[in-house]
Amino acid sequence: MVIFVTFAQTISKYMKRTLLCLLIAGLSLAGSAQTRKNIQIPNLHGFVTLKCDFHIHTVFSDGTVWPTVRVAEAYREGLDAIAITDHIEYRPYNGDLKTSHNRSYDLAAPVAKAAGIILIKGSEITRAMPPGHFNALFLTDSEELDQPDYLDALRAAQKQNAFIFWNHPGWDAQQPDTTLWWAEHTKIWEQGAMMGIEVVNGTEYFPEAHQWCLEKNLTLLGNTDVHDPIQAHSDFADGTHRTMTLVFAKEATAEGIREALLNRRTAIYNRETLIGEERYLKELFEKALDIKVEKTNNTTVRITIKNNSDFIFHLNKTKHDERLVYFRNYTIVPQGTHVISVRLQDGAQGGDVNFCVENLLTQPNQGMPYSIKILP
Amino acid sequence: MVIFVTFAQTISKYMKRTLLCLLIAGLSLAGSAQTRKNIQIPNLHGFVTLKCDFHIHTVFSDGTVWPTVRVAEAYREGLDAIAITDHIEYRPYNGDLKTSHNRSYDLAAPVAKAAGIILIKGSEITRAMPPGHFNALFLTDSEELDQPDYLDALRAAQKQNAFIFWNHPGWDAQQPDTTLWWAEHTKIWEQGAMMGIEVVNGTEYFPEAHQWCLEKNLTLLGNTDVHDPIQAHSDFADGTHRTMTLVFAKEATAEGIREALLNRRTAIYNRETLIGEERYLKELFEKALDIKVEKTNNTTVRITIKNNSDFIFHLNKTKHDERLVYFRNYTIVPQGTHVISVRLQDGAQGGDVNFCVENLLTQPNQGMPYSIKILP
Amino acid sequence: MVIFVTFAQTISKYMKRTLLCLLIAGLSLAGSAQTRKNIQIPNLHGFVTLKCDFHIHTVFSDGTVWPTVRVAEAYREGLDAIAITDHIEYRPYNGDLKTSHNRSYDLAAPVAKAAGIILIKGSEITRAMPPGHFNALFLTDSEELDQPDYLDALRAAQKQNAFIFWNHPGWDAQQPDTTLWWAEHTKIWEQGAMMGIEVVNGTEYFPEAHQWCLEKNLTLLGNTDVHDPIQAHSDFADGTHRTMTLVFAKEATAEGIREALLNRRTAIYNRETLIGEERYLKELFEKALDIKVEKTNNTTVRITIKNNSDFIFHLNKTKHDERLVYFRNYTIVPQGTHVISVRLQDGAQGGDVNFCVENLLTQPNQGMPYSIKILP
Amino acid sequence: MVIFVTFAQTISKYMKRTLLCLLIAGLSLAGSAQTRKNIQIPNLHGFVTLKCDFHIHTVFSDGTVWPTVRVAEAYREGLDAIAITDHIEYRPYNGDLKTSHNRSYDLAAPVAKAAGIILIKGSEITRAMPPGHFNALFLTDSEELDQPDYLDALRAAQKQNAFIFWNHPGWDAQQPDTTLWWAEHTKIWEQGAMMGIEVVNGTEYFPEAHQWCLEKNLTLLGNTDVHDPIQAHSDFADGTHRTMTLVFAKEATAEGIREALLNRRTAIYNRETLIGEERYLKELFEKALDIKVEKTNNTTVRITIKNNSDFIFHLNKTKHDERLVYFRNYTIVPQGTHVISVRLQDGAQGGDVNFCVENLLTQPNQGMPYSIKILP
Repeated sequence: MVIFVTFAQTISKYMKRTLLCLLIAGLSLAGSAQTRKNIQIPNLHGFVTLKCDFHIHTVFSDGTVWPTVRVAEAYREGLDAIAITDHIEYRPYNGDLKTSHNRSYDLAAPVAKAAGIILIKGSEITRAMPPGHFNALFLTDSEELDQPDYLDALRAAQKQNAFIFWNHPGWDAQQPDTTLWWAEHTKIWEQGAMMGIEVVNGTEYFPEAHQWCLEKNLTLLGNTDVHDPIQAHSDFADGTHRTMTLVFAKEATAEGIREALLNRRTAIYNRETLIGEERYLKELFEKALDIKVEKTNNTTVRITIKNNSDFIFHLNKTKHDERLVYFRNYTIVPQGTHVISVRLQDGAQGGDVNFCVENLLTQPNQGMPYSIKILP
Repeated sequence: MVIFVTFAQTISKYMKRTLLCLLIAGLSLAGSAQTRKNIQIPNLHGFVTLKCDFHIHTVFSDGTVWPTVRVAEAYREGLDAIAITDHIEYRPYNGDLKTSHNRSYDLAAPVAKAAGIILIKGSEITRAMPPGHFNALFLTDSEELDQPDYLDALRAAQKQNAFIFWNHPGWDAQQPDTTLWWAEHTKIWEQGAMMGIEVVNGTEYFPEAHQWCLEKNLTLLGNTDVHDPIQAHSDFADGTHRTMTLVFAKEATAEGIREALLNRRTAIYNRETLIGEERYLKELFEKALDIKVEKTNNTTVRITIKNNSDFIFHLNKTKHDERLVYFRNYTIVPQGTHVISVRLQDGAQGGDVNFCVENLLTQPNQGMPYSIKILP
Repeated sequence: MVIFVTFAQTISKYMKRTLLCLLIAGLSLAGSAQTRKNIQIPNLHGFVTLKCDFHIHTVFSDGTVWPTVRVAEAYREGLDAIAITDHIEYRPYNGDLKTSHNRSYDLAAPVAKAAGIILIKGSEITRAMPPGHFNALFLTDSEELDQPDYLDALRAAQKQNAFIFWNHPGWDAQQPDTTLWWAEHTKIWEQGAMMGIEVVNGTEYFPEAHQWCLEKNLTLLGNTDVHDPIQAHSDFADGTHRTMTLVFAKEATAEGIREALLNRRTAIYNRETLIGEERYLKELFEKALDIKVEKTNNTTVRITIKNNSDFIFHLNKTKHDERLVYFRNYTIVPQGTHVISVRLQDGAQGGDVNFCVENLLTQPNQGMPYSIKILP
Repeated sequence: MVIFVTFAQTISKYMKRTLLCLLIAGLSLAGSAQTRKNIQIPNLHGFVTLKCDFHIHTVFSDGTVWPTVRVAEAYREGLDAIAITDHIEYRPYNGDLKTSHNRSYDLAAPVAKAAGIILIKGSEITRAMPPGHFNALFLTDSEELDQPDYLDALRAAQKQNAFIFWNHPGWDAQQPDTTLWWAEHTKIWEQGAMMGIEVVNGTEYFPEAHQWCLEKNLTLLGNTDVHDPIQAHSDFADGTHRTMTLVFAKEATAEGIREALLNRRTAIYNRETLIGEERYLKELFEKALDIKVEKTNNTTVRITIKNNSDFIFHLNKTKHDERLVYFRNYTIVPQGTHVISVRLQDGAQGGDVNFCVENLLTQPNQGMPYSIKILP
């Protein structure tokens, strides 16, 4: 990755020669250059699949890293876009840090540009429950969101054409026993200020919120809400990936992401699980796999499945013609090729190999049904 | 990877139904399908770079795995070709195992074919020092090599047009203090029965043998000599690779490999080190890297290096025009992009950025010199 | 680990000097000495917790490694005991291998002794369903089990005082749709030849079989059924462990294990999950953790939990006094120390922090309830 | 690890309920509790071996993390002591951050106390070459070091009884071609303001500086100089450790460390290498290993070596009685047990097994000689 040098703005006299050295040093010391790795995820027909994290903190609220670190992390993990969303109302370090709400974005922006990462300006409106926390994306001036009344804050975001979503709706610190929808949420939703919900926060999944998204046509989002260095949570080098929102965009730009979010073309990728509408998950599944069905003789069928993606798929057999004898459950590993055998019994000539893909959630806590057809 | 099923040859009556189940089971239980990963290594102009291991054991000599395991390991690690080279004279399990010298090849061949791995028939002629151990590749009948006199064994291999090389010439069990060339080696070499030397065995490098190859025009080889499951030594999943011979072949076939070996178009890849002739290592280096040189102003030059390979390169500055100020040493990481800064001092307009690539050994224990030119 | 040298039994004349060298070589080449690592699991009151795998194959049935490899793997992974249980009726390599059913044990035994691993002599009776496959442990002569009728095979094992258990009862190759208990199993059980069931095979859990164990007082077992090198399935170096049966034994001997198996003092450790009777899982949980409860003021309680084991525990809140506000779910990581905060509301002075430990299965698919008491 | 909550100092009215929730949340969200792991390194006779890193940056100079992160990293990696040493003269973020030179220490101190990490107050005096950069440890007020003249800065540190050492003496940004000792260094050394040298910075070793330490009785130090999150450089979870100074202290306190530094009781641990005086490295080697020598018969000796440490040792045979036949080179792996065979030839009854431990550097780039005695 390109290695970025930061220059001091003011140079006192005796520092001059030092800085000359530091400048060169900055380049050569950073020998531990960053490597960008990509998770293999297919594009959809007409859309590019963008890997995004829309909920991230820095020292400018209660995070523990400088904003540029967030870009370096995103670069390393092959992300396409991030939003830094520092809290408006909670800034524990403001005794030490000057706190324009725009500052973390401004510091990260040039580095993001150089690294080819789409940086979206965001902020987190941070209130007690109800209504809890909300992220506003695509802001032009975060300062405007610093309002005593949360409704005013949301309105300020709307005035900037922000995309707004409810964060961690089932966070136990605010909803100790159950994930509740409060009257305030109805109000916010009715005034058009809730366009999506963070159905996964960190690695925690909120099935009730998944249901609300289906009922109310809200966009599904999954983000890290990372405060510490990302490696404290997931070690990309070790093969674990951060939670992300997959955005199916017409183009790889901030505007492309906004259009896709507004039209609910997203899926959530949380550890082994994908959460989204059936039309998107089904296409991801089919684009990820090459499936070949061959009869080896009258009673045996060989299904060869080549997984070209980094997804894993867990299949569980569902109701089926019992004359087709096949696996009870089966795991398709990332980048693996599998040969599955089906036995045709008692005169069966063909039929449907039915199963549920357990880790593709098209409904709350419910996998996606799928069939592979064996022609007679 | 394709999952291979082994069938029992004879089915006693009461086993019938069991086997029917095992057949299906073989396919579905082996859910832990193999994933093939590739090390990114560039091809050379006119040649495909094949990743090969020409020294491998199984239970048919003193190894501890069934021959098919060797194919599965090679598949998983992205190798193109292997030779199983069981000892002719040392078969500690022959009280338990029938011991045709051709058997390990015969068992592995159909699996290799299905997996797309080139399997080369080989054997290891196993004698005390002098002359030590020799591998013969491209055999048609290993049985012929079972001869009391080692010269007869070598002659039998030559009669089959084998490619023959001296294994682990500095193995301390046979050469306790120094790596010696004995009169017997001169004799073997003069009769054309030593065409190469295993300059790296496991991860051990023999610089004296490297020198002999240069002097006598012998092919450089590096192999694992693996006896146990390969993961007991190198964990490919963890990013460590086995020692291998890179073969620059006109075509990816056994015949293509033989032609390349006979014409000494090889390099050895041992941990971070490549060993080979300068013409090959230089081309690998240049094909691996995109190098861009830009003057940012009168006194500063920015060299951007993008490494498209999985190789690492360690650069150490060598003698140079001191008006060019640059790194003392620098590491180019696998798949990384680096920006290196060069300062032009005291009126220098351009010049050569000279360094040695420490881990590209073109001479025994000696790195490859290289220059990046800055035009005035 | 001690490095073992195998000697050829017969030395032809010209091999003499070679072998002398090989002998020394065997020792020095095997430089990749084995390191034994231990999973931290507490002992129970009066019992030592032994880590065991009672279902393992070698080339002497349809496995792919020499028997000694199984001992080396067990050593490296910190196991205390293994049983090699090659199939009686399924030996695909018997065209190549002499096939006394006792041979794999005999080959592994001296190596196990030197490595301090308890090696239990076993065999797998391998039939179609019903009744499927059964493992017999603590055999004296496996040859006696080679009988046309499976009932005779089981009787032969009983005559040797074997501990016998039903393997992979829900293996889809034999039970394609549901895990069924057949009339044959009742018969076997009634004649005392089914003393336990393999409730976990590989990483597959059979909840129906878990239920049968509870109802019929059968011993719970979890084993790998490994055929390939173990690293093809779980990479201990990477922090994943193989499935194992934890045996709570009075002494670390084969006899101690037998006594514990007969008295059902076991638990199964499968990835993050433990399966067993509540009395054992509860004690493991309590011995693994140091729990300290402190009131920091009238309304806040701090619970400090130090996990001294390598287990992970997933806690989910259950029904509770709603005046105690605490986490909804919480994960206690291996070797980690956690501070959990409980808020006392509306005048509560104390009460029970109730939760379910989701990954301690005391009933089929059901976690273990637990409470931490806050004294008023 | 204890999870630390930071509270906002001022609570505006509408934030009240939010904060109450955040407080509890802070505790439960931080579920990713830290695990402390220890590298196994033996203590020396009369001294405890403390793992220390004395050169660390935060956002309060040109690092990228908040000071508390440094404590969390140290905790996780099993370190005993760290010094945060932000630059006095180079603070690129001081447009955003209030910049008392004491602030990073003050922020980290309470967290360090809670975590049981010894936090040493330090600062880096940051000048062009000569004289380059110097770290001052055990300061009471870093503000005093902010002086136009570097000699005044050093004097201010001396007045506070600081331990002062020269950082990265061969840093190529300041010493482009060779590691030079300048007249200024003589001056500093003569006035007692250079008590040690950072012979390893990051993973770069400066053999010239090693030599100067030997000649001038200076303390050897090795530190990370980390600016980014530590995992960007070394992944402790993956088995790589950061560079550290091992301090052989009479007690595990800041005062104990100072006394040991002043008396040069240190060693540097850089990847596989240890650098230090022979008396310390030899004792570490002997305390790490159990060595047992047995004659198995008249001509064979078995040396069993059990490595109880996480160190690796690379042995290379040196000049020896050639009647003792043994390995040419040998690697003793961490926590491994090895059996080494020695053959006694031509009537030898005993003698010395001589070798050099290549990765224990007692002189610049030179390993430590060692002998294992075989009694007649």
